[in-house]
Amino acid sequence: MRYSVVLEEGERRLAVVDGGRFAILGPDFADLRAVLVSPGAEEAMRRRVSLAEADWRPLESARFAQPFARPGKIVCLGLNYRDHALEGGYAVPDYPALFLRTATSLLAAGAPIVAPAVSEKLDFEAELLVIVGQGGRRIAEADALRHVFGYACFNDASIRDFQRKTHQWTPGKNFDGTGAIGPVVVTADELPAGASGLAIRCRLNGTTVQDANTADMLVSVPRAIAIISEFMTLEPGDMIAMGTPQGVGHARNPPLWMRPGDDVEVEIERIGILRNPIVAEDSAAVPRAS
Amino acid sequence: MRYSVVLEEGERRLAVVDGGRFAILGPDFADLRAVLVSPGAEEAMRRRVSLAEADWRPLESARFAQPFARPGKIVCLGLNYRDHALEGGYAVPDYPALFLRTATSLLAAGAPIVAPAVSEKLDFEAELLVIVGQGGRRIAEADALRHVFGYACFNDASIRDFQRKTHQWTPGKNFDGTGAIGPVVVTADELPAGASGLAIRCRLNGTTVQDANTADMLVSVPRAIAIISEFMTLEPGDMIAMGTPQGVGHARNPPLWMRPGDDVEVEIERIGILRNPIVAEDSAAVPRAS
Repeated sequence: MRYSVVLEEGERRLAVVDGGRFAILGPDFADLRAVLVSPGAEEAMRRRVSLAEADWRPLESARFAQPFARPGKIVCLGLNYRDHALEGGYAVPDYPALFLRTATSLLAAGAPIVAPAVSEKLDFEAELLVIVGQGGRRIAEADALRHVFGYACFNDASIRDFQRKTHQWTPGKNFDGTGAIGPVVVTADELPAGASGLAIRCRLNGTTVQDANTADMLVSVPRAIAIISEFMTLEPGDMIAMGTPQGVGHARNPPLWMRPGDDVEVEIERIGILRNPIVAEDSAAVPRAS
Repeated sequence: MRYSVVLEEGERRLAVVDGGRFAILGPDFADLRAVLVSPGAEEAMRRRVSLAEADWRPLESARFAQPFARPGKIVCLGLNYRDHALEGGYAVPDYPALFLRTATSLLAAGAPIVAPAVSEKLDFEAELLVIVGQGGRRIAEADALRHVFGYACFNDASIRDFQRKTHQWTPGKNFDGTGAIGPVVVTADELPAGASGLAIRCRLNGTTVQDANTADMLVSVPRAIAIISEFMTLEPGDMIAMGTPQGVGHARNPPLWMRPGDDVEVEIERIGILRNPIVAEDSAAVPRAS
């Protein structure tokens, strides 16, 4: 199954996606959470789709929302492609550099990524995103894929000078409206195990700037789940961003930054295309402290 | 006002604390969220307390819960006391090392901090915790204290070998059941501006192991709010842990680790005492992946 959450008159609605069209699953499901952990719910959803006189509409007409109204944990792997670690001046690690994103840093497919006024160093990062279905702690690598609900495209857009303010990357990874998700979540059964072996690309204004394959990840999806759940309980709806391959803008000479008016796309084979425009921070439009 | 959230027959209840006693504010308030942003709610609460024939009970009899059922962001400052930065082998920073904790890493006052089976390096960190009342983005330092609801004690207990697996501290700061909060949240009006000038101490089995003053923080509470809200929107209920002073166990020779059976206390002048026992991870008692 391929799911999206779309906005209908301002309300979040869970939809199924079939090729270039989507159908809303009635008013009861505002979120991906309904189908996350229960195989029964997934099955009911499949029947609902096949039985319904579905109101199919073209996917281009959809306005997307994030998969979750209240995102859980967002755990991100850094330096998970060999050539990306090297281009950034890091050694190839034997344990992933793990950092966290907060919900305020996320945005939906199609929504504008905000280029902050305080920095010009807004960079793209095409990534595979894992959506956790069944939670758990100390999940063995051999069991880990049973805990995956599905996969999506992610753009871990980063403000490089804030990322390196200190050794902790938190600020540069948590600007409001920089981590783009979607538009489709593809259930794990539709993809190779661990979503391995899929082409992953980033295009900036139509030019390919990252071009790699998820088989090149140093830490696989099941290994990442084992590593993370060694110390923290993973919960349904938690998301794991699997790191970006080589080609990011800050490692180029001269550097390549995203600017207002740009258009950035992350494409993962058999998952889809995540497209976001870049806009300048409009201080008038941002909620300010009074 | 001094608030606690306590457990009554398994239900979370907001309570006021007065000296060594507490009174539950009826069944309507399960959380600190009700009083966070609205001065009206706070005022109503004050009247409710003064008018009610309150059922005061001794604080020792309370079973505490965390202040929030669904914690928001937990932003933590590292290396925010000069002597602590130096004892850890770090330079004194001019921008705080910012990291994040997740909700699964938190626990209430009185609850056991879990010493993980995979490490012996469980360390204590006495910290001042800021509870955000009114949210905002790009909050000026001069306005920042208006965004603070109150303060609490925090023990940022850390698994040192996992903290230094890579340059990113996430794993060692996010083991389940390591970040202790409470038991009391004191509203800002009862304390000096920014909770500055308060003695802060940690005791392990009754022996003082950290002894400092919040006036020694490199980054003050208003400055921290300005720095964090430069990149992310702070929301009501978000928490900011202000970093720990010198004296931590891993910087000692020989190192001093917390072990099962130990008892750890964080005390901040005019706020209170946060006490937690240390227990061994009982693999039978921890939810496991099936």
